[in-house]
Amino acid sequence: MKKIYNVAIVGLGQIGSYLYKEILTKRKEIQKKTGKIINIVAISAKNKNKKRKFKINKNIFFSDPLKLISEKKIDIIFECIGLSDGISKKVVEKAIANRIHVITPNKALIAKHGEHLSNMALKKKVNLEFEASVGGGIPILRTIKEGLATNKINKIYGILNGTCNYILTEMEKTGDSFKSVLKKAQDHGYAEPGNPKLDLNGYDTLAKVKILSALAFNKKISTSNCLMEGIENIESKDFDMADQLNLRIKLLGITEIVNNRLFERVHPCLVKKNTYIANVSGVMNAVILEGMPVGETVLQGEGAGPGPTSSALMSDFLSILRGNIKFPFGLPNNARESARIYDDKNYENSLYLRFEVNDKPGVLSQITKHLAKYKISIQRLIQIPDNTKKKASIIIITHSVKENNSNKCLRSINSIKNIIKKPVLIRLFNGNIY
Amino acid sequence: MKKIYNVAIVGLGQIGSYLYKEILTKRKEIQKKTGKIINIVAISAKNKNKKRKFKINKNIFFSDPLKLISEKKIDIIFECIGLSDGISKKVVEKAIANRIHVITPNKALIAKHGEHLSNMALKKKVNLEFEASVGGGIPILRTIKEGLATNKINKIYGILNGTCNYILTEMEKTGDSFKSVLKKAQDHGYAEPGNPKLDLNGYDTLAKVKILSALAFNKKISTSNCLMEGIENIESKDFDMADQLNLRIKLLGITEIVNNRLFERVHPCLVKKNTYIANVSGVMNAVILEGMPVGETVLQGEGAGPGPTSSALMSDFLSILRGNIKFPFGLPNNARESARIYDDKNYENSLYLRFEVNDKPGVLSQITKHLAKYKISIQRLIQIPDNTKKKASIIIITHSVKENNSNKCLRSINSIKNIIKKPVLIRLFNGNIY
Repeated sequence: MKKIYNVAIVGLGQIGSYLYKEILTKRKEIQKKTGKIINIVAISAKNKNKKRKFKINKNIFFSDPLKLISEKKIDIIFECIGLSDGISKKVVEKAIANRIHVITPNKALIAKHGEHLSNMALKKKVNLEFEASVGGGIPILRTIKEGLATNKINKIYGILNGTCNYILTEMEKTGDSFKSVLKKAQDHGYAEPGNPKLDLNGYDTLAKVKILSALAFNKKISTSNCLMEGIENIESKDFDMADQLNLRIKLLGITEIVNNRLFERVHPCLVKKNTYIANVSGVMNAVILEGMPVGETVLQGEGAGPGPTSSALMSDFLSILRGNIKFPFGLPNNARESARIYDDKNYENSLYLRFEVNDKPGVLSQITKHLAKYKISIQRLIQIPDNTKKKASIIIITHSVKENNSNKCLRSINSIKNIIKKPVLIRLFNGNIY
Repeated sequence: MKKIYNVAIVGLGQIGSYLYKEILTKRKEIQKKTGKIINIVAISAKNKNKKRKFKINKNIFFSDPLKLISEKKIDIIFECIGLSDGISKKVVEKAIANRIHVITPNKALIAKHGEHLSNMALKKKVNLEFEASVGGGIPILRTIKEGLATNKINKIYGILNGTCNYILTEMEKTGDSFKSVLKKAQDHGYAEPGNPKLDLNGYDTLAKVKILSALAFNKKISTSNCLMEGIENIESKDFDMADQLNLRIKLLGITEIVNNRLFERVHPCLVKKNTYIANVSGVMNAVILEGMPVGETVLQGEGAGPGPTSSALMSDFLSILRGNIKFPFGLPNNARESARIYDDKNYENSLYLRFEVNDKPGVLSQITKHLAKYKISIQRLIQIPDNTKKKASIIIITHSVKENNSNKCLRSINSIKNIIKKPVLIRLFNGNIY
């Protein structure tokens, strides 16, 4: 077996440069644990001279990551650019084609091209490792692939986006608006300064859900559309109401097998305050996994930031150095079938609905008439007038209702002229929790 | 590499027989995941004809597990007898000597003979795997060795004994006595019917703590005595008081490095009700791990019972089948030093003390005089009279005090003649939590 491993890091943002420092610091420990000598022989980023937290060796700098692969003898490459396509994909493809092991925290890339890239990796007999793509420092993928290897997993759900969880936690705590808390998250470095949309609209969580499903249920990564809602429309009013109802708002990613069909979804949920998941705060991530025979397993840890992400990247690194050649998705790709997809029109939940209306006679009766038409029954109704503005908020908690009915109902309610804003809908977790 | 693996299971109690069924059921899945064909070629237990939940193949039954090793060609053996010495040790030694991989859930054996056995295994180039020895279904050892491979871990603590946690949870919930709840635990199969002492006195938790320390801090398993207290002396009165103080009683195992010294201990703790650890109920286990750069990681799952234990045994099994030869403790044994041990006389906590006294004048003043003598200051004192019996309970919450002082003080308090019972002492978690 090889004794010396040449390593390249492509992308030197927060994660790449932290990792670079971490590998240099831990070289001796790695040698002790694996018997392997590590050399970082090449690094690459957009800007050679950008100010970074950690000093880089400019003698091994390449502006073009593809050139780096042609020119250097490399055994393991870290792809830390983070795009779902473009240069990220090209780097990984070229690396695998050149029989280089690949490690990446790039969930967007794996969720979109994981099948194609893992096929390549299996053909070329190299590792494609992506522990850092889900749950930051939580070794959740390894736990599914190895720690719970022969369990039959039925369901996984959790808080998978630290940015959203931070924003929801802060909004609840401070009463501040979404916009101002988002600004604070960006100042803290928890949210992308430029375009945080992929965090906030649920896409980031969904990419992680898709990777989890593939591993947990031994299926191909699903390419189907599915229910995806973010947190952008939640207002401080909703936190006040949740509080009164002894509930808390969390953005959950959920995947499970229902009647042999895969049901993946991402949306804000109202969870009971005394549940475990309600008490996962700030940038923390948590994953809850239901399996047989293991029962319920919970993993919680810091979900974002260069420290936890590096921890996961390093675990993949040591796994390769120890010679553990593995199937990227735990099974040969031809043993992984495409999943049949659950029709989310049948998804059933109690709903929290908030309507903002002009305080005119008859509005409430119009709303309840529409609800009745779609057989949506009400378990609680709260009207909060804003007398100065002659407006009111109407909050309705429904009994359990199918997605199909609530969708149609809300579309028809849109026609009521005294409703002044798109209604807010938040699902109550676990169907009906009253 | 080998294609067919011959397997033996020694010990067919709850765990062994569940595992036996699990391997038979999952043969095809294992072949798909690892490419290996599995044959169970031998089983052994004390009693061939005992009634078991799962039918065994009596044609491959051996009464003598040592004979089984001599007579059969075996690649992997499961030791599920569970003794710290005796036949368990002999089976594992003989298996390793014969170049057979060993998998065991036996924490007592590993905590006591882990160094010796892992030395043997490394010499013979076979695996010695014991994931199931700590945390039942929670893949905590794998997480430390692999998932968090290059983290610097500072502290691990948690609830590591499902039996004790079940008893404490039930005592709190029902107000029943220790004895009657223990009986219930035995009826449910949560506690050993014969001799549950090793669970209840903290020894089982301590064995797990010792294994965790060795892995987390890269040290040899410590053979030093350390602070170990069980739950046998806790009474329903203590739960009432804890409840009034917004606290809950948990048996914790704790290990950390303090001033470069290893500090392991097991004892009941009073934890704040709103903390995570306070809300781990019933037979659940939980491990909290503080590492750099990963931050705080939490793992929770079912800690006992044949299902979760089998899940962990199977993960070790697949790891071997995938060809992952590993250091049992994550490092070559000669790279693991002996730990210097922290002197627990310096351990500092707020204490909950409960004295049962005859309700005579002067008793309280005598107690407080002794406390003052050892510089133990009181932050709260509650006296609950039992007028019918002319007795009283005196509960004192102290400010932070060193173990050395509290030990001496309690010894001297023993001489007060109107104290009618050994005082109960429970430490408040995290030093002083008020």
